[in-house]
Parts: sequence; structure tokens; C-alpha cells
Amino acid sequence: MIAPRTIALDAMGGDHGPSVVVHGASISLTRHPALEFVLFGDEQVVSAELQNYPELAARSRIVHTPSVIAMDAKPSQALRRGKGSSMWEAIAAVKNEQAHVAVSAGNTGALMAMAKLILRPMAAVERPALAALWPTINSECIVLDVGANIGANARQLSDFALMGAAMARALFHIEYPTVGLLNVGVEEIKGDEHVKQANAWLKQTSGLPLHYRGFIEGDQIGQGTVDVVVVEGFAGNIALKTAEGTAKQIGRYLKDAMLRTWLSKLGAAMARGGFRVLRQKMDPRRVNGGTFLGLNGIAIKSHGGTDALGFASAVDLGYEMAQTGLIERLAADLDTFHHHIGQNAAE
Amino acid sequence: MIAPRTIALDAMGGDHGPSVVVHGASISLTRHPALEFVLFGDEQVVSAELQNYPELAARSRIVHTPSVIAMDAKPSQALRRGKGSSMWEAIAAVKNEQAHVAVSAGNTGALMAMAKLILRPMAAVERPALAALWPTINSECIVLDVGANIGANARQLSDFALMGAAMARALFHIEYPTVGLLNVGVEEIKGDEHVKQANAWLKQTSGLPLHYRGFIEGDQIGQGTVDVVVVEGFAGNIALKTAEGTAKQIGRYLKDAMLRTWLSKLGAAMARGGFRVLRQKMDPRRVNGGTFLGLNGIAIKSHGGTDALGFASAVDLGYEMAQTGLIERLAADLDTFHHHIGQNAAE
Repeated sequence: MIAPRTIALDAMGGDHGPSVVVHGASISLTRHPALEFVLFGDEQVVSAELQNYPELAARSRIVHTPSVIAMDAKPSQALRRGKGSSMWEAIAAVKNEQAHVAVSAGNTGALMAMAKLILRPMAAVERPALAALWPTINSECIVLDVGANIGANARQLSDFALMGAAMARALFHIEYPTVGLLNVGVEEIKGDEHVKQANAWLKQTSGLPLHYRGFIEGDQIGQGTVDVVVVEGFAGNIALKTAEGTAKQIGRYLKDAMLRTWLSKLGAAMARGGFRVLRQKMDPRRVNGGTFLGLNGIAIKSHGGTDALGFASAVDLGYEMAQTGLIERLAADLDTFHHHIGQNAAE
Repeated sequence: MIAPRTIALDAMGGDHGPSVVVHGASISLTRHPALEFVLFGDEQVVSAELQNYPELAARSRIVHTPSVIAMDAKPSQALRRGKGSSMWEAIAAVKNEQAHVAVSAGNTGALMAMAKLILRPMAAVERPALAALWPTINSECIVLDVGANIGANARQLSDFALMGAAMARALFHIEYPTVGLLNVGVEEIKGDEHVKQANAWLKQTSGLPLHYRGFIEGDQIGQGTVDVVVVEGFAGNIALKTAEGTAKQIGRYLKDAMLRTWLSKLGAAMARGGFRVLRQKMDPRRVNGGTFLGLNGIAIKSHGGTDALGFASAVDLGYEMAQTGLIERLAADLDTFHHHIGQNAAE
């Protein structure tokens, strides 16, 4: 038996490597004292970092790995030369049941390719998906796929719904998360055949562990209309980045507007407590971590350029996702669903 | 010869009908005194409205139409029963060269279907597109397709680039607008075959009236990286609505943050000049109007729920787009491009 909530860390991943990874893990440990870590990387460098965080060191062990996947390596290269790298071995630790979850701030394409190769898609899953946490007016929702694939057929979209619901159950502790299918309109006639068929299946299938709410539109994501938003990866990736860009753009408008006159500057200075709250609310480090779902094990991708606080959010996410039984439960849900649509197709 | 810049108005369209349409037109007329209008609608109702705006009345004529397309009519219904409606006749006025541009705040699906049927796609165009103005940090850019179609092949995407460039030339008065192709990454290997092929064609083809800048990602739209952003309609529609939703969400965050303490409230009150500028900057009425491109005539869709100020923006857009020669120039550009890719395909 492995200890509960053990996280395998790619200690060399990301733009800043071990300094951010180790510091980030130490922040997350203060929030979740039950965490344990296995750090994969250059032993000398990582152990030197760990010395700065004795409490983290006491709950960590280092596994030396001789190589590192470059941030600009192509996925195919990374697969060929990956063995022995900190990223590869961190994922392999999940496969070998030495850890519940792997977290890496390294090369996204390489991580997805490796995770798929090492952990393998679940028996029922045609395509794994990348799920993002998305801040909403009330709290957060999960959006998937945000770029693991381009395009998705009806079955794959429906699978994403179940995968997202499993993640929502782990993160938000809701037994029946609400799920919406992203479309260009909410009427039944909107969308292509894949979206329409997925909508029909999710509506018809009884016994699914979710409340299906039908189609939603892009402006409803941030309103928190549903816990899980399902979309194929091309549009999902574009939506995510567009929202990030819009937030940055409005931040810039706000700054310019406050710097216009001495009165607005003074007012903004007095309201700085409010602006601090706003900044925290909009801080992209607060929700960091794409979760790779649909494999026989969980891999989480942190933004490569994030700092320790951002990396800690990805580790926090790993902690929540490191629930034993999550994948078994999802497998059973997928079985129920595929059985149902198989019957329907046969009718 | 028709008078320069004559606009056909669907006076009955939108949630508020003639009151908003007529008032909106009067606002736009103060900005563009060269405008003339043909208003299609219930003669009694429209002429009663017009009496409130004598300057507008002096530059308008009313054409009575006996019916109105309902906001929730299906496009197929609208086509069957459309003749004689204010929307149909406004579009037909463009076809019959009684007006340069038609503007309607009515049912989007009906407007697109009617415009396509009445104005017909340009000889070289497989698919018309809906283009939106998108506010950026510096000014505005054009994004298309935002929902006229779902999916687009390489040729259609490339055509969108030329159509968007023609619109940018009319609106921004730039001879060689910059164009980017929206994708899930900027590397050449990203995206599906359609996006990759369109990228290759736009790169290779010399003599195009635009500066092609390659792939861009969602967060670059609002940064104003390019004048024209090309994307297939499903992802484009979702991106547009997601950006609108994000802006609303942040506005809400900001309000909540300012209302937190008496000090932040006081500061916000002092900075109200700045907040007013911000509100103006983020006012969705400032840029209102989807332009239906690729037909033998221009049709513009205003938001159905907008007020007079918002409708005036759509009329302003119509004024800019009502340039004689725009469609002829676009037709020539499309010819050049298709000749080039035809040669390439034959090689």
C-alpha cells in the first residue's frame, strides 16, 4: 500500500526548474499536511533546493534522473529520448503505483504524449482530454478539452462529460455535477452532427452521475452556469486563451483609466484594498494546472512560466485529484454509458 | 446612379423595433451627414417615429412592408414566408441597387438565410462569413467567421482572410491589413489539415492585398496583434461569446471589489471619472454589428436587444462598409488568389 496522496514531481520541468517546483511544493504542503512527494530530477540540484525547506524534505524523497526534456522538444523526440528524464520517471511513478498523481511544469506536448504512452488510455476511452479549471463569478468550473485533441465525435464528447464530472466530484465534492455542452446556440438545431448526437445521448441516458443541462454558449462559462463545460479541443483551447487575453486586456484598460487624472489616481490609491482583492481574484496563479484525464492515472500540467505560488496551485489540484477510486469509478460510469449508447445504436 | 451611402433599414427588426431603429439612425446621421435612408416597415408606425426626428425624416423615405419576421422564426420559415417582410425588402433594396447596405436588428438566422438567397454568394465564394468587430488594446480588429458556418476548409479559411482584409480596408483605411489565422499554437505543426493548408497558401501567395502574419492564439486577439483574425465559425463564435462573458465577469469582480469597504467605496467615488472612461471603453454598444461578407452586397446584423446608441454603431458600420467598389475589388483579389492556388494544385 502506498501512502495516501503521494505526488510525483517533475522537479526539472518548467522555465525555472527545481527552485519553483520545490518552493511550490512546500507552499502546498502547508495547506495539505498529508501530502508526500517523490521528486524526480538531478539529485544534487534538487537536494540543495530541498535543504531550504526542512518540513518538505521530511516528507519527500528524491529519485535521481539523468536527463531533462527541453521545453521546445517535439513530442516525438521526447518519446524517443524520454526514458530516464525527470518527466518520464515522474509519470512512470504513477504507473508503478509509487505515486497517485504526477505534476510537471514541463513541455505540454511531451507530457501529453508520454502520459498517454506510459499510463495508457482507459479501456473505454478513445481520446484522453486536457481539462482546465476556469474561474467563474461564484467559484470555478472545469472546461475540457482545452487542447489535447482537435475535433471530437459524439462519443468522445460524451466521454469528456463523464471525465469532467469525475474531476468535478473530486474537486468540488459534488456527487452530481452539472454539465453543459458548449455550442454556438442553445437551440436543439444548433451545432454540427457530433454536438447534436452527444446532446441527444447525454439527455437520454439515465443513471449517469451528473445533471446534464444541455447546450450552453461561450458567455455562460464564466457565469458559472454549470460545473463542467464540454467542448472539442480546438474551440476549447481558443476559448481558454481568449478569456485569458480578455482578462489581461481589461486589466490594462483599468490601469489606463485610473492613471488618467490626479483625482482618479488618488481615488484608486484609496481603493487599493479593493484593487488588491480584484488582483487576487484575477491572479492566473490562483488556478493553475491542466489535468490530463482518461488515462489509467492522473497527470497534471502546470504553466511552464509560473512561479512558486502558481506551481503550488497545480500541486493543490494534484492533491484533490489523488483520490483513490476516482479512476475505477469513472471506468464504471463509462461502461454504463457505452452500454446504453450501444443498445440505442442497436435498436 | 444612387446617392452615396444610402442605407436600407429593417425598421421593424430587433426587440424594440422602430423606436430603437429610427432613434439609432438619427444618432448616426449626426455623425455622418452624407447618409440617406430607406426604411422598410409598417408605414404608420415608422412615420410616427420619424416625426420625432425631422432631420432624419428629411433624408429618409419609407417603404411600407406588410409583415415582420419574428425573432424566434426558423430560417426555413423565414425564407418561405419572408417576401414582403421588412427584413426581406431591406435586403432586396441592396440587390436592386436602391441602397448600398442593409442593416437589421432582427433574427440572425433569418437574416443570414435571406441575405444569402437574395444577394447570392459572390461567384468565387463557397461560403459567406459573419465578421465581428472586436475591441483591442489599441483600437479594434475584425474576427471572422463568428458563426455563419460550422467548420471551414483551407480554401474557405483563405477566402475569409481576403474578405476580412477587404472589410479592414474599408473600416480602418489600411491598404495592406495584417491578417492572422487563429490556431491552438503558433508552431507550423499545430492545427488540423485545413488550418495548415490555409497557412501554407496565405504564406506562398504573392500579390495578396494583405500582410499575412501566420498563426495567432486566442490571447492575441485582444492585444491587437493583427487587423484581421481568421477562424472557422464554431470556434469563432465561441471565442466571441467567451470574451463577452469574461468582460462581464470582470466587471462584476470590479464592482464587488469596490463595494467591499467604505474606503474602497470612497476611492471608487473619487475615481469615478476613470471608471466612466473604463465603462465607455467596455460598452458593448460601442462596437455593434456583425457584417455578412462574401455576398454580392453587404448586410449588417445589429444585436437584437441593443438600444439606439448600439443601433447607431451598426449604422456607422454600414456607412463605412457602403463604399462603392469594395465588392468588385474583393472579387478581383479572390480571383488572383484562386488562380494561384489552382496553379499550385495543378503542379
